[in-house]
Amino acid sequence: MAGGGAAASALSTPWRSLLQRALDGNAHLKHSTFFQLATVGGGGRPANRTVVFRGFQEQSDKIQINTDARSNKIGEIRNCSFGEICWYFTDTWEQFRISGFIDVVDGSNPEPVKLQLRERAWFGSSVKSRLQYLGPCPGLPIPDDDLIKDAHLDPSAGPVDAFCLLVLDPEKFSYRNANAIPWMLSWPSILVCYVNVKAGGAGLLEINYGQAMNAAFKRWLVEVNRKTGPPPQVANGRLHIA
Amino acid sequence: MAGGGAAASALSTPWRSLLQRALDGNAHLKHSTFFQLATVGGGGRPANRTVVFRGFQEQSDKIQINTDARSNKIGEIRNCSFGEICWYFTDTWEQFRISGFIDVVDGSNPEPVKLQLRERAWFGSSVKSRLQYLGPCPGLPIPDDDLIKDAHLDPSAGPVDAFCLLVLDPEKFSYRNANAIPWMLSWPSILVCYVNVKAGGAGLLEINYGQAMNAAFKRWLVEVNRKTGPPPQVANGRLHIA
Ligand SMILES: Cc1cc2nc3c(=O)[nH]c(=O)nc-3n(C[C@H](O)[C@H](O)[C@H](O)COP(=O)(O)O)c2cc1C
Ligand SMILES: Cc1cc2nc3c(=O)[nH]c(=O)nc-3n(C[C@H](O)[C@H](O)[C@H](O)COP(=O)(O)O)c2cc1C
Repeated sequence: MAGGGAAASALSTPWRSLLQRALDGNAHLKHSTFFQLATVGGGGRPANRTVVFRGFQEQSDKIQINTDARSNKIGEIRNCSFGEICWYFTDTWEQFRISGFIDVVDGSNPEPVKLQLRERAWFGSSVKSRLQYLGPCPGLPIPDDDLIKDAHLDPSAGPVDAFCLLVLDPEKFSYRNANAIPWMLSWPSILVCYVNVKAGGAGLLEINYGQAMNAAFKRWLVEVNRKTGPPPQVANGRLHIA
Repeated sequence: MAGGGAAASALSTPWRSLLQRALDGNAHLKHSTFFQLATVGGGGRPANRTVVFRGFQEQSDKIQINTDARSNKIGEIRNCSFGEICWYFTDTWEQFRISGFIDVVDGSNPEPVKLQLRERAWFGSSVKSRLQYLGPCPGLPIPDDDLIKDAHLDPSAGPVDAFCLLVLDPEKFSYRNANAIPWMLSWPSILVCYVNVKAGGAGLLEINYGQAMNAAFKRWLVEVNRKTGPPPQVANGRLHIA
C-alpha cells in the first residue's frame, strides 16, 4: 500500500526518490511502513510515538497518517503544528528525518477538498482497522464484536467522528546511512553529501535540504573527495540513484 | 551489552521488568537496542532521531545514551531538558514510551561522580565507535585512518572532548502491545492494564505510570474483564510476568 500507487508516481524531489528506494528495498518487512512521529506536548515537552505511513497525498510530497481525533497528539498539534518524523529502515540501516507543518483534518474541517481526502483515507484502510475508531478509547482494538454495540460497521459507511487524517508537509529533510562514508556534491540550492556505501552500491548520506552545511564538514568532505575521486553515480552534476 | 549486566540486576519497577523482557525477547535483532529520542529544538519545534541504548546506569533506572557534544541535540537539551524515547520492538510488536529529564554529561561537568560515569561509558564502547568522536563532524565515521591525522586512538586514552553521555531519568512511562487486547488491574498508585495477547502468552498493554486513566477507558476495561474473566497471569493483585 504505502510503497506503491500514488507514492510511486510523482517523484518530484531527490529525497522522495531516495525514500521510495528505501520503501521498495524494505517492503518485505511489515514494520518498514512504521515510523516515529515527534510533536511538542504539554508544558513544551516532547512527545514521540509510532504511527503507520499511509502514503503520500496524490500529486504532492505530503505524508499521510491516520489517527484518532481523541488522542493526545491532536491537542499537541493544534498547539504547535510542527512534527518531526524519524523513519529508520532496519534492513538497509537508513534513517530519514522529515519535519514540517502538520495539518489536522477531522470531520469538522471547512474545506471540501480536505474532507474528501479524509474520506479517501478512511476507505483506504481495512474495515478491521476502521473498527478501532468506534471503541471508547482511541487506538484500541475492540476485542469482541458483540461486546460493544455499534461495533458492527457498514463497510460502505463514511468516516466516523473519531477518524482523523494528519498531513505532514515536508520542509526539512535529512538522510543518514549508518553503513556509509560521505561524499559531497553541490546541488542547486541544496547541499548534498554523496556516499559510497561500504557494502557495495551507493546512496546519499545526508541532504541538508535548503540549509548550509557546517564549514568543517564541508572541508572534510572536499578532502575525502580529493583522495578517492568522485562516486560513479554522479554525472553532470546531477544526482543519479542507481 | 545493553540487555545484560547492570540492566538485569535491579529490576526495581514493573516497567523495567517489562522492558527487560522485551530486550531479551528481541536480543537476536541488532536494531532492538535502537530507539528514537525526541527533543524540542529551534523555534520550539520537535526533533527526532535514532540513538543506541547504552544500558541503565548502575543501581538505577536511568537510561544512558552516548552522543557527540557538537551535535544539535546538545543545544536543544540545554534549552529544554526533557526527552521522550519511543522504542518499538519489531518482533514482539511492543512499544515503550519513556519520558523524563535528560542530564548532559560532557567533559566540563563539575561533578566527579558524573565524570566517572562518562569515562565508564567511553571505555564501554568499542575503539572503532570511539573513533567517530575524533572526526571533524559529529556522528560520522572516519572513512580512512590515514586521511585525518589523530585518527589513531590509544585504546587506553580517556574520553575526548566531543564525547558526551546523556542520562534520561524516566518520569512517565507508557506501554502498548499492538497485538493485544486490554485488561485492567489496580496497582498501588499505578493503574495497570493487563492484556491477553491474542497470539498466545500475555503482556501489559498500557501502564499510566503515576497517572489516572481516562474514565471511559476504565469503564470499558471493567466491561471486558467482566465478560472474559481475569487473565491467568494476575495472582493476588500482583503483576506476574510469565
Ligand atoms: C506498530 C504500531 C503502529 C501504530 N500506528 C498508529 C497510527 O497509525 N496512528 C496512530 O494514531 N497511532 C498508532 N499507534 C499508536 C501510537 O503509537 C500511540 O500509542 C497512540 O497514537 C497514542 O498516542 P498519543 O497519546 O501521543 O496521541 C501505533 C502503535 C504501534 C505499536
Ligand atoms: C542506527 C543508528 C544509530 C545511531 N546511534 C546514535 C547514537 O547512539 N548517538 C547519537 O548521538 N547519534 C546516533 N545516530 C545518529 C542520529 O540519528 C543523528 O543523526 C545524530 O545524532 C545527529 O542528531 P542531532 O543533529 O539531532 O543531534 C544513529 C543513527 C542511526 C541510523
